[in-house]
Amino acid sequence: MAADRVNLNADMGEGFGAYDMGDDDRLLAIVGSANVACGMHAGDPNVMHRVLSAARDRGVSVGAHAGFNDLSGFGRRAIEMTSWDLELLVTYQIGALQGVAAHVGMTVTHLKPHGALYNMAAERSDYALAIGRAAAKVDPALVYVAPDGSAMQAAAAELGLPMACEAFVDRTYEDDGSLTPRSQPGAVITDPELAAERAVAIVRRQAVPTRSGGELPRRVDTLCIHADSAGAVETGKAVRRALEDAGIALVTIPDVAN
Amino acid sequence: MAADRVNLNADMGEGFGAYDMGDDDRLLAIVGSANVACGMHAGDPNVMHRVLSAARDRGVSVGAHAGFNDLSGFGRRAIEMTSWDLELLVTYQIGALQGVAAHVGMTVTHLKPHGALYNMAAERSDYALAIGRAAAKVDPALVYVAPDGSAMQAAAAELGLPMACEAFVDRTYEDDGSLTPRSQPGAVITDPELAAERAVAIVRRQAVPTRSGGELPRRVDTLCIHADSAGAVETGKAVRRALEDAGIALVTIPDVAN
Amino acid sequence: MAADRVNLNADMGEGFGAYDMGDDDRLLAIVGSANVACGMHAGDPNVMHRVLSAARDRGVSVGAHAGFNDLSGFGRRAIEMTSWDLELLVTYQIGALQGVAAHVGMTVTHLKPHGALYNMAAERSDYALAIGRAAAKVDPALVYVAPDGSAMQAAAAELGLPMACEAFVDRTYEDDGSLTPRSQPGAVITDPELAAERAVAIVRRQAVPTRSGGELPRRVDTLCIHADSAGAVETGKAVRRALEDAGIALVTIPDVAN
Amino acid sequence: MAADRVNLNADMGEGFGAYDMGDDDRLLAIVGSANVACGMHAGDPNVMHRVLSAARDRGVSVGAHAGFNDLSGFGRRAIEMTSWDLELLVTYQIGALQGVAAHVGMTVTHLKPHGALYNMAAERSDYALAIGRAAAKVDPALVYVAPDGSAMQAAAAELGLPMACEAFVDRTYEDDGSLTPRSQPGAVITDPELAAERAVAIVRRQAVPTRSGGELPRRVDTLCIHADSAGAVETGKAVRRALEDAGIALVTIPDVAN
Repeated sequence: MAADRVNLNADMGEGFGAYDMGDDDRLLAIVGSANVACGMHAGDPNVMHRVLSAARDRGVSVGAHAGFNDLSGFGRRAIEMTSWDLELLVTYQIGALQGVAAHVGMTVTHLKPHGALYNMAAERSDYALAIGRAAAKVDPALVYVAPDGSAMQAAAAELGLPMACEAFVDRTYEDDGSLTPRSQPGAVITDPELAAERAVAIVRRQAVPTRSGGELPRRVDTLCIHADSAGAVETGKAVRRALEDAGIALVTIPDVAN
Repeated sequence: MAADRVNLNADMGEGFGAYDMGDDDRLLAIVGSANVACGMHAGDPNVMHRVLSAARDRGVSVGAHAGFNDLSGFGRRAIEMTSWDLELLVTYQIGALQGVAAHVGMTVTHLKPHGALYNMAAERSDYALAIGRAAAKVDPALVYVAPDGSAMQAAAAELGLPMACEAFVDRTYEDDGSLTPRSQPGAVITDPELAAERAVAIVRRQAVPTRSGGELPRRVDTLCIHADSAGAVETGKAVRRALEDAGIALVTIPDVAN
Repeated sequence: MAADRVNLNADMGEGFGAYDMGDDDRLLAIVGSANVACGMHAGDPNVMHRVLSAARDRGVSVGAHAGFNDLSGFGRRAIEMTSWDLELLVTYQIGALQGVAAHVGMTVTHLKPHGALYNMAAERSDYALAIGRAAAKVDPALVYVAPDGSAMQAAAAELGLPMACEAFVDRTYEDDGSLTPRSQPGAVITDPELAAERAVAIVRRQAVPTRSGGELPRRVDTLCIHADSAGAVETGKAVRRALEDAGIALVTIPDVAN
Repeated sequence: MAADRVNLNADMGEGFGAYDMGDDDRLLAIVGSANVACGMHAGDPNVMHRVLSAARDRGVSVGAHAGFNDLSGFGRRAIEMTSWDLELLVTYQIGALQGVAAHVGMTVTHLKPHGALYNMAAERSDYALAIGRAAAKVDPALVYVAPDGSAMQAAAAELGLPMACEAFVDRTYEDDGSLTPRSQPGAVITDPELAAERAVAIVRRQAVPTRSGGELPRRVDTLCIHADSAGAVETGKAVRRALEDAGIALVTIPDVAN
């Protein structure tokens, strides 16, 4: 069954103190949902407030982009911790974002792990469940954003959390469903029009294209625009336009979850 | 008018990572309310969860003990920041604690600044208002805990926040109402029985004793037991017993606020 | 007596983790000395190594740009600490930079406080002496970089440290010798040619121009190019060219110190 | 060949800010060398200065106890980073400690990784070499402290660094040479007299006892007293006395290295 709606999401609020990163303002004009760093791998109260205020003004829904507490490594380094430590670390981040959201009159509606935590939780059920339990305890209406077929999807199902399945418009997939490593040539799609074409196909066919030329069936509710890629804004605009032209409605994460 | 009820509060959850501080478990058997460090000057998700779980089990109410983001200085160093930065810093901490509180099934019911922030906000209305606005935006039912006559009390009044006025049982006061600096001999009351006697007098007379032998009228709703003092537990026990013997009811902060 | 030589310095290595700041590579082609952040208000081992390697390749001398341990505030927030704590905090930063310098085969030759610490130590002898004692203990050949007439200059003299006196080419001065606050119109010189003209005059006349149209006699050994100003590179180039055209030799900090 | 000399070492300076850990003063009366935390997993400039001053006064040699930059996890969580990042992270820590050592008039003479980094570098040559290269670049006279047979020993040999081989007096070994996990009953020797007896045997026989009752030949130059074990001081005293009674000389790490 081809989908008639999809969400676009992007990671935002990745600055810290005097440091900016990404082009949040322009991306907020494109996406329906923002994943907001919560002060551990990136983000601070001021950055969070700026992103949430702007998201509110544009009708963009917001979620916690929870990461390892590793500002030095920007959350991209794998860290071994107990699942209990992880559950509380994610709990803390959700709460902190909820606090800032209350300040701007918004509600946090989804949760998506960041960087190395995303990659580890895609494979490991202990991490996937720890993240999910944090959501279940703090707010069971939080939508768990993760790839179809991942350990996170299984965790969401086990915990009864709503789920939105994510695919990437600017990355190619291997036959086993993993993302092609960035070190491989062609792993990252930099041509906005090509990304846009793929986006429409992914949503319509509910399948992701593989590097080998085939495709893998995948439930896809939300497409991630990588905010830190060069040309993220151009890719985002092209993807959005192509989806609109194809008659696919662009909505927020709560509107695609189940 | 003599008060027939009072709250005992103590600062808790001041550990971090591998580090413990204070004797939270024993203090939780004594006090009615705990001020919990929120991860900036001290505290981390695990410490917060341990304190909140134990507080819940003992019927102790909890509040955010918000401090400067200065773990190195334990929040005891004066930092100049804009009132907007401070408002968001406190907002973040309240939210983070609310997240952990939701995890254990509790509600955060008060807010008390820590260390240098407490001292600065007692004098400076910009800081006092910034802290109060954070509470007003995140949860206007939060009780602002601060000394009678401080800039924080004025801020709470201006913002319409409920207030609980705090005095210290183990410190002496100067004639101008300030605490006697710890460097002065006799500034800290270390004899539990003397502290207990003073506690009863403070509550009954709604006045604090001065070093010079007089007293200053003060609204006193809650008495702080310094968790990091040597003998905090002994002092706390003696104070509690003396108050009970005097027929003064021991309640939580929400029960004394207005 | 007109000077026939001067140093140009700039603050560098102000990135952290995934964050970049400033245009270090291009500034290193202009200045004779780099003030390198040491991991407290900014900087990390990788950033430090990159700057030092590039400085070595260009013959640029390096110094420790020591700041408060306040990454959130980028070292721009005034912090009250004991002079002993400050002395050790600066000691640590000098040592850390020396370690990275040893790795690239360089020697750290000067010390300049950053941000709020610079401003406080310009006025307060306790801070100025604490910084100086760190240098005196770790390496008494370190050149203390600070404004003529500041408490830091007095501290350097008292401790027998070599000194290089600094002025700013892109800022105006008040009649009392302080920098015009950035909030004042015209406080920051953004026209590269105007900055260049002033630079030559400052060095030749050993005096800084005031906003009111006069000048204040000042020993000036080194001119600071603000790396984080818009147009820093253009200003730097114009200043360098004008100084060269005026026959003023451009040297490193150790070559102007005494 | 039975050894006639050995070093006792302990991890120290593991406090941070307001937090203390371990009983450094009493351990400094027992050991010949101290491994000092450098501000990443623990330690700060004040703690480092206190330990180094006391070590100097007692004739105890000092080394950098380099760890992951993970204060939250106390350096006990495995972190994946590039070997280049690790080399610079260790370089920074050595330098910082050297800075503080210069302040107190000491020289840093050895390097020992901490916690998870120690465990990973025992197995992985990329980590072992990264740590060794930091030492080789900053000061090639630094003694690399690590277990006989580890990847760190191979790295020291490859890089031409002096080496001191370490064994633990309060832990049992498995037949494959690994430490018995602490979760196993009997993994930690808590009886001071038993630890002392083992210490003498380990040094005399240059072999470590296994949990199964056998022994594994091992070069042993230095014995580690775990500072954070309950009874560390008592164990240390008993071990020291037994070694002295056995006529084994107690020396510093540079005196046992080669």
